[in-house]
Amino acid sequence: SVNPDLASERQTASFSVEKLTAWLDGGAEHTQTRRAVVEAIQRDPVFSRENQYFQSQNERYEAAVRKAVHLHKKTQEMGWTENGPEMKYIYRAVSGDIAFLLHRIFMRSISMLGSNQQIAKWIPLATQFQIIGSYAQTELGHGTYLQGLETTAVFDITTQEFILNTPNLSAMKWWPGDMGRSATHTVVFAQLYIHGKCYGVHPFIVQIRSLQDHSLCPGVTAGDIGPKMNFEHIDNGYLLLQNVRVPRENMLNKFCEVQPDGNYKRQGSQQINYFTMTTTRISLLASEVLTPLMKACTIAIRYSVVRRQSKLAPGEQEAKILDYQTQQEKLLPQLAAVYAFHVINNYLQELFNRGYREIQRHNFDTLPELHALSSGFKAFVSQYCTSAVEICLQACGGHGYSMLSGLPSLYTNILASCIYEGENTILLLQTARFLVKCLKAASTGQPVPPSVTYLAAVKPGKCPAKNKSDFLCSDIYTEAYQHMAARLTISTAAKLQDLIQSGVKKHDAWNQCTVQLAQAAKAHCHYITVKNFAETVEKLKTEAGIQKIMKHLCDLFALHGIFTNAGVFLHDGYISGAQMDMVASSYLDLLAVIRKDAVPLVDAFDFTDQSLNSALGSYDGQVYQRLYEWAQKSPTNTQMSPAYKKYLKPLLHKRLSKL
Amino acid sequence: SVNPDLASERQTASFSVEKLTAWLDGGAEHTQTRRAVVEAIQRDPVFSRENQYFQSQNERYEAAVRKAVHLHKKTQEMGWTENGPEMKYIYRAVSGDIAFLLHRIFMRSISMLGSNQQIAKWIPLATQFQIIGSYAQTELGHGTYLQGLETTAVFDITTQEFILNTPNLSAMKWWPGDMGRSATHTVVFAQLYIHGKCYGVHPFIVQIRSLQDHSLCPGVTAGDIGPKMNFEHIDNGYLLLQNVRVPRENMLNKFCEVQPDGNYKRQGSQQINYFTMTTTRISLLASEVLTPLMKACTIAIRYSVVRRQSKLAPGEQEAKILDYQTQQEKLLPQLAAVYAFHVINNYLQELFNRGYREIQRHNFDTLPELHALSSGFKAFVSQYCTSAVEICLQACGGHGYSMLSGLPSLYTNILASCIYEGENTILLLQTARFLVKCLKAASTGQPVPPSVTYLAAVKPGKCPAKNKSDFLCSDIYTEAYQHMAARLTISTAAKLQDLIQSGVKKHDAWNQCTVQLAQAAKAHCHYITVKNFAETVEKLKTEAGIQKIMKHLCDLFALHGIFTNAGVFLHDGYISGAQMDMVASSYLDLLAVIRKDAVPLVDAFDFTDQSLNSALGSYDGQVYQRLYEWAQKSPTNTQMSPAYKKYLKPLLHKRLSKL
Repeated sequence: SVNPDLASERQTASFSVEKLTAWLDGGAEHTQTRRAVVEAIQRDPVFSRENQYFQSQNERYEAAVRKAVHLHKKTQEMGWTENGPEMKYIYRAVSGDIAFLLHRIFMRSISMLGSNQQIAKWIPLATQFQIIGSYAQTELGHGTYLQGLETTAVFDITTQEFILNTPNLSAMKWWPGDMGRSATHTVVFAQLYIHGKCYGVHPFIVQIRSLQDHSLCPGVTAGDIGPKMNFEHIDNGYLLLQNVRVPRENMLNKFCEVQPDGNYKRQGSQQINYFTMTTTRISLLASEVLTPLMKACTIAIRYSVVRRQSKLAPGEQEAKILDYQTQQEKLLPQLAAVYAFHVINNYLQELFNRGYREIQRHNFDTLPELHALSSGFKAFVSQYCTSAVEICLQACGGHGYSMLSGLPSLYTNILASCIYEGENTILLLQTARFLVKCLKAASTGQPVPPSVTYLAAVKPGKCPAKNKSDFLCSDIYTEAYQHMAARLTISTAAKLQDLIQSGVKKHDAWNQCTVQLAQAAKAHCHYITVKNFAETVEKLKTEAGIQKIMKHLCDLFALHGIFTNAGVFLHDGYISGAQMDMVASSYLDLLAVIRKDAVPLVDAFDFTDQSLNSALGSYDGQVYQRLYEWAQKSPTNTQMSPAYKKYLKPLLHKRLSKL
Repeated sequence: SVNPDLASERQTASFSVEKLTAWLDGGAEHTQTRRAVVEAIQRDPVFSRENQYFQSQNERYEAAVRKAVHLHKKTQEMGWTENGPEMKYIYRAVSGDIAFLLHRIFMRSISMLGSNQQIAKWIPLATQFQIIGSYAQTELGHGTYLQGLETTAVFDITTQEFILNTPNLSAMKWWPGDMGRSATHTVVFAQLYIHGKCYGVHPFIVQIRSLQDHSLCPGVTAGDIGPKMNFEHIDNGYLLLQNVRVPRENMLNKFCEVQPDGNYKRQGSQQINYFTMTTTRISLLASEVLTPLMKACTIAIRYSVVRRQSKLAPGEQEAKILDYQTQQEKLLPQLAAVYAFHVINNYLQELFNRGYREIQRHNFDTLPELHALSSGFKAFVSQYCTSAVEICLQACGGHGYSMLSGLPSLYTNILASCIYEGENTILLLQTARFLVKCLKAASTGQPVPPSVTYLAAVKPGKCPAKNKSDFLCSDIYTEAYQHMAARLTISTAAKLQDLIQSGVKKHDAWNQCTVQLAQAAKAHCHYITVKNFAETVEKLKTEAGIQKIMKHLCDLFALHGIFTNAGVFLHDGYISGAQMDMVASSYLDLLAVIRKDAVPLVDAFDFTDQSLNSALGSYDGQVYQRLYEWAQKSPTNTQMSPAYKKYLKPLLHKRLSKL
């Protein structure tokens, strides 16, 4: 039975939850497919997540391998094909809790960087799990700066082999998933040497474990890097190579080849390699960043209408905590952010698909803009959503801190997205470099990509809002964001120019501007997100109730951003102090409006209880029962501790049974 | 041997690290005592933390009980007495990783709330661990709002007993430490009923486990609440009572008593109870909040001079990451915050000691101010430091995410301080209520406590700074903080008044102002912290080098606060946009200055490698060696996984040993 406090929230929805779900899925037919996949996977006991919070790293790893192998079978049984509509829902259905994701990257890198011959040899083996692959790029001492990788691959012309070596400790491969305990093969990125000359980093397929008994191959040292903040199910590994020889054909050679005589040949464009990284950054936003935040919002908002604490008015029943303005101000902006980022994510996906088609026609014009967008948005969205999940966790008080709430693992999971696939600060600075470059181009009349034309078009001026309802006009706030983003780029570019003109070396000047450059890049992404959300809401072709609530969410997202970053809007007087009071007022009013639909807005995300895996967030709101039931299954209750007999019994008072 | 990149940082310190350590400890003699305690404890193998990151919740619990029992013995052996100078260093020396902290709260509550007779009976038993106590206040459905507790204690006049009951699921005691598996007794907070009349919440000593075999007593259901984000070593528990009878003498009766005839007698003041909570909030700041941040700063800063990544200038060696402005801007403000909060913590401790002496003389005048300060500062400092630790973690990239860095557990540990001993938002609102009340009093000419006199004294005006060096004058920025804090309280109080006058009910009006009230409370604490730090630095009687670097840190802390909260300073034009540019400029310049002393400034915290327990943060900076060595000890490497045989072997290609 559904907790009555939660049930009552569902009776007053201002829109159809089912229709909102369909809109989020991109059509009712997709919702159907998704539900069928989730249903098929979640009713299979192998994919159970029941004991997840009680398992050790070793148990989690074993379960993840089992799931991966079983999924392989299941996919075939169900007739789900690699390019079928079901594929994109499988990962969501298993809640990411599965091994061999790096095996997929291994395959992707061979498909992208390998010759047809290499593809024909390796892909079928990998597809059937006859080999398990990994992707060994990052080293113990080297992450983001790829040119700094130290692993070497020296071409031996006499044997037609590459000799791979880890020249010192900091060159050890460190972090690659699936490598610590599972992989039989990996793609090693190493500095290529021919006749003593270095040709830069190249990818080599290296076998690391025997296919007969899984023992490490000669010259190979490998293992697991130990406990991490999350991803216990993944065997992130280390790898040390000592004179490991691979045949010449094992260098992935679609673009670069070492010929038998040691002649080095580069063909085609290297730019396409950047594009792979670029698309990865965008494609991870949905699965690794937005999904955890959607789950966290679902859990925190459902719990906040079940939990009652203290009184709003004397003599009344204790109030639902979501009825406190401070709780609304914690959670509802995060909910608005989910919708904002869902919209921008769709936009970016579409942009990248178009870009991909262009690139296949050898038109690389959009590449710089796409690279800047993917870097900036990966950083901006992952940082924003990580903070948002943390807010959701803290907003649930003590029970949010219990692993059984599901929130701690959502937080530790999403936190990693700020680090992998490019450290966020470095990514923001890449976007900033693009912005500064475009600003310079635009101010000398050269054409610039569409997303940055505003930089040169912004005029000095003041926000025209006269009263608080003006701030519910999307043109008003979008323009404020545009003005602010342009100002930050322009003023930082000016500072950079001033420093250089005053004699500071170019790279020192750049370093001295990086804090503000990163801020400008974030502001750029924030502006585009607001603009895009507002435009999408305006064009929304769905029932009126949905458009209305989306408009509220868009307003909330935008005004929350102004309220919490007031300084950058007030700085040059574009928004005055009196106008900022209007912003605050409109913003706080909106909280009370959206609060009414908060539960339907998270119900629309349509997560099953199994995928939430939360004692606080289940559909029926039976929070306390579930916490109690789940706690009883904990090994701290099911296993007897020797602590009493060993340490306490000798001390405790013995003569009295009752004091 | 010390990593040369780290060693070189220590050769250029602008002050004596040893003298700074002595200042932090409050005198060289305290440093000596502390080091002796740490040395005695850390050389004892029972207190080893070597395998901590590899242990299960059960193993952590067992180790913590063992340590607690052993510490009891050790303390006696060493001749450390309860009131001796060593006592305050023991907890730091064991790094908190120990059981029976709630046992101490059990004892404290009996000492505070029990009669002399009760103290004489229970305290000796507890001191000798002949009984193990806990403190059962929080319930599954009730935390901060104590009046809402549901557990009942009904006085049975015929047997002269109280009958304790858990009337329903949400009334179950939930979270108390040491209760899940260890405690034999606990102090239960329950609604007292006599002849059907409720007298509110009172404390009762209840035995929950047999002293002979540790089995649960009749009518008692208890267990462990399962996995949490941290504190695996503590058996946070649940407790369900069904008609559990305790004798009349088990109600703690220093202030309230039920006489044999059922007559209820209250004596003395209840206010002193608040004071206990108040002092707890202040006393936890040093051990639970500041210490984790000091450790996180030590780890992140040492790592940031060992880690090299990318190049600052073409052709050069890869740069230490601490030489990037963005990395400085992440870490150095957190380092400044440590010193700022160290200073304010000393100030608050002193204030509370004075207050305690006053209260013993039955002068309760300072109680409201002390309560407001303790609530506000607990919330402000714990939230600030939690964010700071998170920044340190993220600033260490991938390796920061490894448990072996020590940063994940520091983060999950400090995060709890935002939740326990009063949820932060509720605490801030208590401070805000005090501020609004004082403002009203002050504006009608009534006397107000010293910390809030500024509310009525602030005049409209503008910041007089003319150039960026003016912002290195502590009067300039302290006044800016004062102006801003007063403005926030005054404008929110005005909004509250307006709402009430426009007909909104008082409690609804309050709720509609809470977001801004919480902001005002935070601003008040921020202002006092800055003011106090500046005053302390000015009066510093120590070597000139230390005063100089402290002045830099004070400036950095203050300017960082203005830079990151620019909106509240710009809002009414007190600081202009042009002045804000000066702030930014002074702030960013300071980073490069303090960067030079960053390592000596964390060395002065004087943590041993054992208490840091970090592969990234050890004194010798041998980061990569340690990561590799520690990883090899992980159970993921020392235990064979069945995953290969069970799931992989049947799939892997068998015919070829080498592909």
